[in-house]
Amino acid sequence: MPAVAGPEIERLIQLLARLPGLGPRSARRAALHLIKKRELLMAPLASALQTAIEKIVVCGRCGNIDTQNPCTVCVDPRRDQSVIVVVADVADLWALERAGAINARYHVLGGTLSPLDGIGPQDLTTAHYITDLLRGANVKVTRLAHGVPVGGELDYLDEGTLSAAIRSRTAF
Amino acid sequence: MPAVAGPEIERLIQLLARLPGLGPRSARRAALHLIKKRELLMAPLASALQTAIEKIVVCGRCGNIDTQNPCTVCVDPRRDQSVIVVVADVADLWALERAGAINARYHVLGGTLSPLDGIGPQDLTTAHYITDLLRGANVKVTRLAHGVPVGGELDYLDEGTLSAAIRSRTAF
Repeated sequence: MPAVAGPEIERLIQLLARLPGLGPRSARRAALHLIKKRELLMAPLASALQTAIEKIVVCGRCGNIDTQNPCTVCVDPRRDQSVIVVVADVADLWALERAGAINARYHVLGGTLSPLDGIGPQDLTTAHYITDLLRGANVKVTRLAHGVPVGGELDYLDEGTLSAAIRSRTAF
Repeated sequence: MPAVAGPEIERLIQLLARLPGLGPRSARRAALHLIKKRELLMAPLASALQTAIEKIVVCGRCGNIDTQNPCTVCVDPRRDQSVIVVVADVADLWALERAGAINARYHVLGGTLSPLDGIGPQDLTTAHYITDLLRGANVKVTRLAHGVPVGGELDYLDEGTLSAAIRSRTAF
């Protein structure tokens, strides 16, 4: 595809296309949108990125991403200090915090073990490994329940989830 | 939704969510991706945006977006100087240039007339207006052909396009 808009604009399009959720075509639309909204969007975004580059740190305790180290979650005294929620990724931590269901601290693995790619669920492998390591340490290890999403339709569910939901059904 | 990641990160997510193609959820994923690839993606993107802010200008002749004024297309001496392709938006200009089907210059309207929103195709209204203005000026006005996309399946086409394609069918 010939570059029609000068190397600076093409470079911007290429970088935007590397964001998850944007392909080459939507990256071009995004670039054009940014250029048209130079003062309202492009300049604030450039500045927000620069601020993020300067301020964002990885929490040395839990692996969360924040602008302080230790992070806001780790230093929160109201949280239960006796429970650690192990998550694969910062995205998982953020999702759990948005749900507001956790009153504990975290440990972000930054990935999951997959010694035999394609053999089974990677997080299951990782959970087994953690359980093995902690055996004998008098620590209770639990994992999230598998089941039917709230409001979900059975027809759209994969068979693994459906089987797990039936195996783990709860009494009224 | 509670802010879990500090105001600087929330600000970045909010700005990314204003890009076409990204919603609140994918903006959060994009922000996390940028933060994880700070050196490889976030810093280059911040710098590309800054360069764009400083260098990008609107061509005073045709309305194209470029880093020079008049733009690369306008100053290209190999183009037919007797034809002007009128387009609604810079995105249309870029699309035509990518197709490589135009050897002329452009005029970017920056929008289309829609005096009676919802009454009919806006670009048709604009084309009629331009034709009216140029009546008597000895200028030939043409418009793009309507028809079936190359390789398109009839089953997926809207009825307006299909009718236009039948009305304007060409002889072998």
